[in-house]
Amino acid sequence: MDLTALAPDELAARRDALRAAHDDLRARGLKLDLTRGKPSAEQLDLSEDLLDLPGTGRHTAPDGTDCRNYGGGLQGLRELREIFAPFVGVPADQLVAMGNSSLALMHDNLVFALLNGTPDGGRWVDSEVAFVCPVPGYDRHFALLDRYGIQAVPVPMTGDGPDMDVVERLVADDPRIKGMWCVPLYSNPTGACYSAETVRRLAAMPTAAPDFRLFWDNAYAVHHLTGTEHTVADVLAEAERAGHPNRPLVFASTSKITFAGSGVAFFGSSPANVAAFLASASKRTIGPDKINHLRHVALLRDAEGLRAHMRRHREIIRPKFELVDELLRKHLDGAVASWTLPQGGYFISLDVLDGCARRTVELAKQAGIAVTPAGATFPGGNDPRDRNIRIAPTYPPTEELTEAITGLALCVQLAEVERLLAGNGR
Amino acid sequence: MDLTALAPDELAARRDALRAAHDDLRARGLKLDLTRGKPSAEQLDLSEDLLDLPGTGRHTAPDGTDCRNYGGGLQGLRELREIFAPFVGVPADQLVAMGNSSLALMHDNLVFALLNGTPDGGRWVDSEVAFVCPVPGYDRHFALLDRYGIQAVPVPMTGDGPDMDVVERLVADDPRIKGMWCVPLYSNPTGACYSAETVRRLAAMPTAAPDFRLFWDNAYAVHHLTGTEHTVADVLAEAERAGHPNRPLVFASTSKITFAGSGVAFFGSSPANVAAFLASASKRTIGPDKINHLRHVALLRDAEGLRAHMRRHREIIRPKFELVDELLRKHLDGAVASWTLPQGGYFISLDVLDGCARRTVELAKQAGIAVTPAGATFPGGNDPRDRNIRIAPTYPPTEELTEAITGLALCVQLAEVERLLAGNGR
Repeated sequence: MDLTALAPDELAARRDALRAAHDDLRARGLKLDLTRGKPSAEQLDLSEDLLDLPGTGRHTAPDGTDCRNYGGGLQGLRELREIFAPFVGVPADQLVAMGNSSLALMHDNLVFALLNGTPDGGRWVDSEVAFVCPVPGYDRHFALLDRYGIQAVPVPMTGDGPDMDVVERLVADDPRIKGMWCVPLYSNPTGACYSAETVRRLAAMPTAAPDFRLFWDNAYAVHHLTGTEHTVADVLAEAERAGHPNRPLVFASTSKITFAGSGVAFFGSSPANVAAFLASASKRTIGPDKINHLRHVALLRDAEGLRAHMRRHREIIRPKFELVDELLRKHLDGAVASWTLPQGGYFISLDVLDGCARRTVELAKQAGIAVTPAGATFPGGNDPRDRNIRIAPTYPPTEELTEAITGLALCVQLAEVERLLAGNGR
Repeated sequence: MDLTALAPDELAARRDALRAAHDDLRARGLKLDLTRGKPSAEQLDLSEDLLDLPGTGRHTAPDGTDCRNYGGGLQGLRELREIFAPFVGVPADQLVAMGNSSLALMHDNLVFALLNGTPDGGRWVDSEVAFVCPVPGYDRHFALLDRYGIQAVPVPMTGDGPDMDVVERLVADDPRIKGMWCVPLYSNPTGACYSAETVRRLAAMPTAAPDFRLFWDNAYAVHHLTGTEHTVADVLAEAERAGHPNRPLVFASTSKITFAGSGVAFFGSSPANVAAFLASASKRTIGPDKINHLRHVALLRDAEGLRAHMRRHREIIRPKFELVDELLRKHLDGAVASWTLPQGGYFISLDVLDGCARRTVELAKQAGIAVTPAGATFPGGNDPRDRNIRIAPTYPPTEELTEAITGLALCVQLAEVERLLAGNGR
């Protein structure tokens, strides 16, 4: 069955049946939530030991630093940086470990560039600034730009990362473009991984702005959903080779590794960028919570400990991604919709018939199923084709997830049938 | 004996004796440190239970929030805010609990004002900005201004706070003056407490800038060194009464209550300012480390628990302040120096003969005694009389403190004698 092949009277009949089903769904008074890219309680339980770590008396770093006190390193605990360095793709010496939010480190890098400038140029706040934004993308990246009056220039994603022909043309021509958001591995929301060629081109491309920066949000570096541990090419090495050593600013966090609200975030870059960041950060704080760093080292221990920990996450969440895929296959039969089955990360990106995303989310809301607002994956909430919906399957228990996805699929079908009928003048 | 009353040849003899004593001191190869306003290990031990709190399974806030996860309140755990509200002088509803650094909250308020403006006006970054800085004051306050190109306008401190006649004239005349640093209780470094009249005048004074802000760093609200628990007048209430409800931005932290590096910081203000702050902060982070908030509630429990905890600190550190006073009385006999014996806070402010602070610190350094650089308590490191030295007595063990202060006093004597001789053309 293919909705688009149906005759108008068949479509109308189908609409009526779907409306009746939607009414039944509404009558059930559901209260389900697909909006949040949050770990489930079962995932958080994997790190429960953090709640009594590091343990009384265990407050001393291997170098003798009393981690309870001020001082001893704005850059964060070395042992923690050493565990994460190979995964984040930044040498431990060029890696900074801070508080619980990588978004905060992106924010602070942006603010420092706006107010203090960078090693490659003056402060950004004195002129118009624009960022390249691969779409669909991460809404919090876009919100940060919006807050500081920075223009977002959308560029379409492909399966290998952003459309590089478009990116290269934009950054070569427009000196206002000072930066670009990148989620290079298991990209939010499509799950795409940047190819080696994409990374090479991003690192090497000529830019009109000499102080252009890749905001490299490596949020899902260890968040594999299959046995294949995908990696992304070494952007710092590529950039250095191309003569742009200061171009990449790399970010990561443990938010979806240990506790989402009580983890550790990382920033890494060239020695010059790290020095500039620490010079500014030193005016803001005496240092990060080193006890929480010790706590994380005690829990994860080493690279293999981190890998094993992430495999346990995978065992919990992979079945949820597979369940969503299975339910969408079953309940979107005949619909125009397509979706990703990502190999890592936290989201499934669902594309419905053009012009149907908002209506789908509205119908779902009526049925008590909260879905991330349509358009959220685009700057300004503006999805020009009104077709992308981001699904976050990790947080709800399996039974709720089943109900929510089944209901959502019904809403997609109804929205599409309505649209096709409207296109027919009905 | 009074150095200034000595005849030149007496001074010269004294200089020679002091130089010999200084040579002996140097020969001892000491390595002592008076620079750091840090809690001692014994003080940190008071909070050792934090290292296995909140304990496995105890991750749920009273309102049901799973504190391990994202979400559940950018404003921070209510129970923690309720403990601190009466001490910080801000209602719990208008108080925000965040990460480990109140300096970071001051920084972020400043950055948000620079880039986003305030409820009372546009962004500060578009024109020249100046801050009133009571001196001597806190070097990190001044460094923050310097980082963002904000001019510091020094105003002398009195025993009741800043010289209000000077402050009122400055802020009334100069629209560039957008802010003022205040440490209202046990001020860093003099220990002065702002009188009720000072607070009233600060809250009520007309300012040329409609978006003028008091950066009210209530760092030592519970850090009493005597049985008298001094308080400061309610600046938010005074400001509201005077028609300037958005003027005070109140800051505090647990850095010198629990663990200096792993505590909690607070920001409080008018509802409009808090809403504006949270609107900006929400672009920076999903929220603070709520497990650390739970941990602090579990340790401190309630207002009385906090008071009792601070009494234990007092028992440890008060003898150190008394020791410094006693040693200075003994070893600065005849010198021009005067110093404070504060009733709270973390510092002793030592004023030596004009023109002798730098030399004293240099002599101390030669003898292996690290003292905060002379001038550090003034913007740009510029103490116009070159006389103020900040002493931090809490961190060193008693024996080291004794040696360090005794040695420092010798250096003061020598610097002053040298100066008096130079004044005599010798």
